[in-house]
Amino acid sequence: MGRITVRRPVLRIGPNGGTTRPDTLAAEEPLEIRLSSKPLTVTMRTPGHDVELAHGFLLTESVIGDHTDVAGARYCDSPGPDGRNTYNVLDVQLAPGVPPPDNSVERNFYTTSSCGVCGKAALDAVRLRSAHPPEQDPLRVRTETLVELPDRLRTAQRVFSSTGGLHGAGLFDSAGEPLAVREDVGRHNAVDKVLGRALLDGSVPLRGSVLMLSGRASFELVQKAAMAGVPFVAAVSAPSSLAVELAEEQGITLVGFLRGSSMNVYTGAERLVVDENVPTG
Amino acid sequence: MGRITVRRPVLRIGPNGGTTRPDTLAAEEPLEIRLSSKPLTVTMRTPGHDVELAHGFLLTESVIGDHTDVAGARYCDSPGPDGRNTYNVLDVQLAPGVPPPDNSVERNFYTTSSCGVCGKAALDAVRLRSAHPPEQDPLRVRTETLVELPDRLRTAQRVFSSTGGLHGAGLFDSAGEPLAVREDVGRHNAVDKVLGRALLDGSVPLRGSVLMLSGRASFELVQKAAMAGVPFVAAVSAPSSLAVELAEEQGITLVGFLRGSSMNVYTGAERLVVDENVPTG
Repeated sequence: MGRITVRRPVLRIGPNGGTTRPDTLAAEEPLEIRLSSKPLTVTMRTPGHDVELAHGFLLTESVIGDHTDVAGARYCDSPGPDGRNTYNVLDVQLAPGVPPPDNSVERNFYTTSSCGVCGKAALDAVRLRSAHPPEQDPLRVRTETLVELPDRLRTAQRVFSSTGGLHGAGLFDSAGEPLAVREDVGRHNAVDKVLGRALLDGSVPLRGSVLMLSGRASFELVQKAAMAGVPFVAAVSAPSSLAVELAEEQGITLVGFLRGSSMNVYTGAERLVVDENVPTG
Repeated sequence: MGRITVRRPVLRIGPNGGTTRPDTLAAEEPLEIRLSSKPLTVTMRTPGHDVELAHGFLLTESVIGDHTDVAGARYCDSPGPDGRNTYNVLDVQLAPGVPPPDNSVERNFYTTSSCGVCGKAALDAVRLRSAHPPEQDPLRVRTETLVELPDRLRTAQRVFSSTGGLHGAGLFDSAGEPLAVREDVGRHNAVDKVLGRALLDGSVPLRGSVLMLSGRASFELVQKAAMAGVPFVAAVSAPSSLAVELAEEQGITLVGFLRGSSMNVYTGAERLVVDENVPTG
């Protein structure tokens, strides 16, 4: 596809003056996901890995639970102004017997709750929907393994290094070996792409895995982990209050501010094996 | 409301060992926006400034164009598990004669385009919908004013400094004086809150203003600026390809990587007055 980055001239102004030079930007294009030819959602994403993105989205919205729930996926013929296919419309056919969701799954998520809209209702909704609750996962991760993950994620993020414009998400095993790493202008998309890759590989539920995020941990990102059975989420930056509540509710270990040799453990500390040279107080 | 931050214990592990101490998290709660009692959308946001958020959202989705298009806004009675109102459901009454949008405005945005889904279609949709195209705005901003904005935004972001978990958005005038600064767990919400504040103040279209973003500049954030008539967007981090295309199309000046005394100017360089000690090459 060759559309992950776009070159453009930019005027760079600094203390030593201004110069015009070519710059590399992270590509952003809309992707429309259709279910059996019917429009389901549009997301602004970095082109590429669109089939993974669709699988991850459908998994974490609980439309599908397994890769066998999808009969096929293909790009629609959607010509742009130049007459060439935009490759921005992907049609997913569900396998026979898999019910399509009610219209607008995302938007109706919370409003179906019985107690108005509150954090408790959001937590309840995830608990009801997740087919793979990670709470019993016996995973253990050494802190010396964990502190290496941000660098491993960054190293695998090839486009970020050229544009500075992409969020990264990586799935790692308990020894810190990467299972899948993806990047995208949207952080939800980066997570959907790695989870979709795992689904296509038959690796969901993702027992014994760590989801590493390049930014912050929001409720919706922890929710995606819960839906895929991921027992451990680590983020370079801060979690939100509801992300921590959901992690606790689902039995997910949540680590934030994972930088250098330090980290904050918000939930599930029993999964961390603290190395002897880093004793807990 | 007192719900902007939440205190929780956290296990902090560092090179000198681990200790448990209280930590401050950015609060995240769902907000359901209703139009005349009918659910419109749910967003995960930091509680507070919800009326501004609703106004900004409705403005940038082109449901309203002016604060007189809204007859009133009130929190619904939406009790949580403890029986107390969650203050997470806000009902907006449109003024007589203002048509409600088609269902699911956001999701249907691109799919109504005639040429499939491509960047061009997205740009066209914004051009058709913006009542306040900023292209003729005579604003000029000195580079020495611009380089101060990230610090001014950060200084005004009180919660970020305690949690590290919030995106910031600020509206400034050409002299760098703040008109409104808001922060939120969602960057779209932070922008909607400042634009909603301006709408309530009767300041839309926001001629002569600069929208400063604490993170990256995506298509959707530049789109919000276009819908409010903002002629200048500056971001601490990278823009996406489609953000730059939209800024060019709408005549918006777009600056990225605004850090220290440096910046990248992607579009609309004519609005920058480069100070004499920072000559352009």
